[in-house]
Amino acid sequence: MNVVDLITKKRDGGEHSRDELRFLMEGVVEGKIPDYQLAAWAMAVYFQGMTPAEATALTQAMAASGETLNLQGLAPAGQLIVDKHSSGGVGDKTTLAVGPIVAACGLPVGKMSGRGLSFSGGTIDKLEGIPGWSASLSMTQFRRQLQEVGLVVAAQTATLAPADQRLYALRDVTGTVPSLPLIAGSIMSKKLAAGADGIVLDVKCGRGAFMETLTQARELAQLMVSIGRGAGRGVTALITAMEQPLGRAVGNNLEVREAIDALHGRGPQDFQELTEAVAIEMLLLGDATLRGLQGASGKEAALAAAGDRVKGAIDSGAAFAKFVEFVVAQGGEEGSVVEPGRLATAPVALEMRAEREGVIRGLDARAVGMAVVGLGGGRRRKGDAIDHRVGVVVAAKVGEQVGDGDLLLTVHAADGESAKVAAAQLRQTYTIVEEVVDSADDEPGSFGVPVVLERITS
Amino acid sequence: MNVVDLITKKRDGGEHSRDELRFLMEGVVEGKIPDYQLAAWAMAVYFQGMTPAEATALTQAMAASGETLNLQGLAPAGQLIVDKHSSGGVGDKTTLAVGPIVAACGLPVGKMSGRGLSFSGGTIDKLEGIPGWSASLSMTQFRRQLQEVGLVVAAQTATLAPADQRLYALRDVTGTVPSLPLIAGSIMSKKLAAGADGIVLDVKCGRGAFMETLTQARELAQLMVSIGRGAGRGVTALITAMEQPLGRAVGNNLEVREAIDALHGRGPQDFQELTEAVAIEMLLLGDATLRGLQGASGKEAALAAAGDRVKGAIDSGAAFAKFVEFVVAQGGEEGSVVEPGRLATAPVALEMRAEREGVIRGLDARAVGMAVVGLGGGRRRKGDAIDHRVGVVVAAKVGEQVGDGDLLLTVHAADGESAKVAAAQLRQTYTIVEEVVDSADDEPGSFGVPVVLERITS
Repeated sequence: MNVVDLITKKRDGGEHSRDELRFLMEGVVEGKIPDYQLAAWAMAVYFQGMTPAEATALTQAMAASGETLNLQGLAPAGQLIVDKHSSGGVGDKTTLAVGPIVAACGLPVGKMSGRGLSFSGGTIDKLEGIPGWSASLSMTQFRRQLQEVGLVVAAQTATLAPADQRLYALRDVTGTVPSLPLIAGSIMSKKLAAGADGIVLDVKCGRGAFMETLTQARELAQLMVSIGRGAGRGVTALITAMEQPLGRAVGNNLEVREAIDALHGRGPQDFQELTEAVAIEMLLLGDATLRGLQGASGKEAALAAAGDRVKGAIDSGAAFAKFVEFVVAQGGEEGSVVEPGRLATAPVALEMRAEREGVIRGLDARAVGMAVVGLGGGRRRKGDAIDHRVGVVVAAKVGEQVGDGDLLLTVHAADGESAKVAAAQLRQTYTIVEEVVDSADDEPGSFGVPVVLERITS
Repeated sequence: MNVVDLITKKRDGGEHSRDELRFLMEGVVEGKIPDYQLAAWAMAVYFQGMTPAEATALTQAMAASGETLNLQGLAPAGQLIVDKHSSGGVGDKTTLAVGPIVAACGLPVGKMSGRGLSFSGGTIDKLEGIPGWSASLSMTQFRRQLQEVGLVVAAQTATLAPADQRLYALRDVTGTVPSLPLIAGSIMSKKLAAGADGIVLDVKCGRGAFMETLTQARELAQLMVSIGRGAGRGVTALITAMEQPLGRAVGNNLEVREAIDALHGRGPQDFQELTEAVAIEMLLLGDATLRGLQGASGKEAALAAAGDRVKGAIDSGAAFAKFVEFVVAQGGEEGSVVEPGRLATAPVALEMRAEREGVIRGLDARAVGMAVVGLGGGRRRKGDAIDHRVGVVVAAKVGEQVGDGDLLLTVHAADGESAKVAAAQLRQTYTIVEEVVDSADDEPGSFGVPVVLERITS
């Protein structure tokens, strides 16, 4: 096989075979295919797209390009191992709350997670604010904790889907990021390599997400569900709103505290709702009893039963207890999560108040995310250090009525200077109107209030 | 300016500004833009194309990326310096005959030429078969010979349009060769940098050319004429047939002999016709008297006068004398061209004869070109050595009637083995039918007989 022929085939709208995609991805990992050929190919894919079968084969080739986890036999009999993935957003601490809930319901959760970049935070960064907690686990530790605790979160290693890692870095500098099959392949290859039987996808949609419109998000979700089905995994995708930050807290330690609130059932409404919805979907995919119930009594009955299990885990305190057990198992200080007030806080708090009365029409999630990066709570570049203390806590969210002088948000900063810079940046973040007017369905900005917009499942 | 932004702009169908293209081409030459970004950009250009204004700006930026020749003041008063370019074909020795004719008519010709690659031969390779002849000239030698002899042919240097050289090499390995603005930019940037006031383009069309259909060739010709006009140069493009080899000889020394025949007015009909047509166009663009005549008495009168000048230069022997003078000026052995029988010949000649009677419907130029490469007369890879003696002489051309056992072609080879291999390859080259049937105009294979198909001028 010849790389130029493969580039030409895709350029001319041809469909790659499974063997061709395996040849390409193996060549990428072995360094036999130079970056310039890979870049030309990625641009051809951007223009010509891929069939679902091609996207599935690409994803499987990327997943097979490195180490793959074998989690067989680590779940109790009948239970499947279910992973979750969020396409990234602002204030998205869902994994921190969902993992313990699902594990407390008896379904083991073993997750590989990433670090944050640009406006979007990362699960590992958030957990690392807990003194002592570590994401560096050997494969043996990972498997043992999955069996003993039922919950483990490790940093993604360079050996997982290395073809994706090289392709992703290249796409970033060649204008080929926004290609649906390449986005779907990147996300799903890591999930396939990480070994779960089922996957719940939280596809964010809106101005604070990579997919800005519902149409784009739906297309991506459908493609990923199709890839999962092609690869023999159960997949459910929830399309969820990311217009305004999820919950109220944005910034690492602030978000851990909010996740703990949700584990007690006291999280902000949108975040609590999303947490429970994702947990329910994971149980529906993985739990033996619920899968049986769904077959026998139908979807509605299974959904209600799953909802009861989630509520039960929260109300009984089992979910929070599982979180503490998980933190301690990975070296974290128990006291910091049992009394989250002990997590490090930023020395400066600066309040921002409304300068007129009205209804909040918009609150730009991406701008809030970028302000937190500016405060030192996120990364501009890979490898940047992070200040876990800083962030923004949103007091007023979309749809709420505010009076002149009411609190909009609080900036938590390392010093007065950076607090002022962030406050200045955030000044334009809120759109406050006299009354709310309806707008078209597929416009960014139009779906700020409900959280789960659509559900697509295999 | 940011390269990713420029790639994205082109990807999304935007039009580059003059400054953006200059930034890109300067970055290419200075090594500031990595190959992978250039490759992604080239693929985006392949899909989105360029406006004529953009293609002109790109060409000028590539021309300005290195040394540019200043030929001002080297032509007699009123005469302009006119260059010619052929888009490459099989048996195309036109420059060898056109240059001396035009120079004998009083218009100086200073050409930068290339070497052959794949099925298409190169002017420099052909001339290097003449013992002693050299294409390595200093700029001072080039200018002096242009003034004193009126004809000089030098090898293209690495300092001429270096941005094109890097982009061309990259296109070859990234599936981005067949992009009209990139092809046009590559050809025209070298012509602009080489300093001529006027340019005659011979755009080949058919199975033995890079442009296979008349539509493609016309688009390319129109774009190059437009680029030339935008850059303030006079340009005339002839679209010419390259279905079967031009003339009868393919292979370096064999072609030099045929070019000498044409200088005496005795070349094969198609080659003689093209030689004279190109010479006439060069005179029309560059000669002061003819330009004046065209203004005063119109195109037809000027054309007739130019034709008379060309005929006169051939019939008087002035054209051939100019060729000898030119060869000697660049170190070539006079005897080898005055008595071309003294040019080295291949030791083995193998004849191929018709196995049935009929009319020749097709004779695949590309297959003949590749057979000559196989004999050692051309290059598979840049830098391969060449055997100047070998080649193919075609006895029967398209439209001719042959009887069973009539001579079709003769293979001239270094040994019996390679002759047999070439003969086996060439067996399928001829299409012999009982009678000729018309086919659609724009189909490759349909324009084998006339040479000049169309003329486009600024």
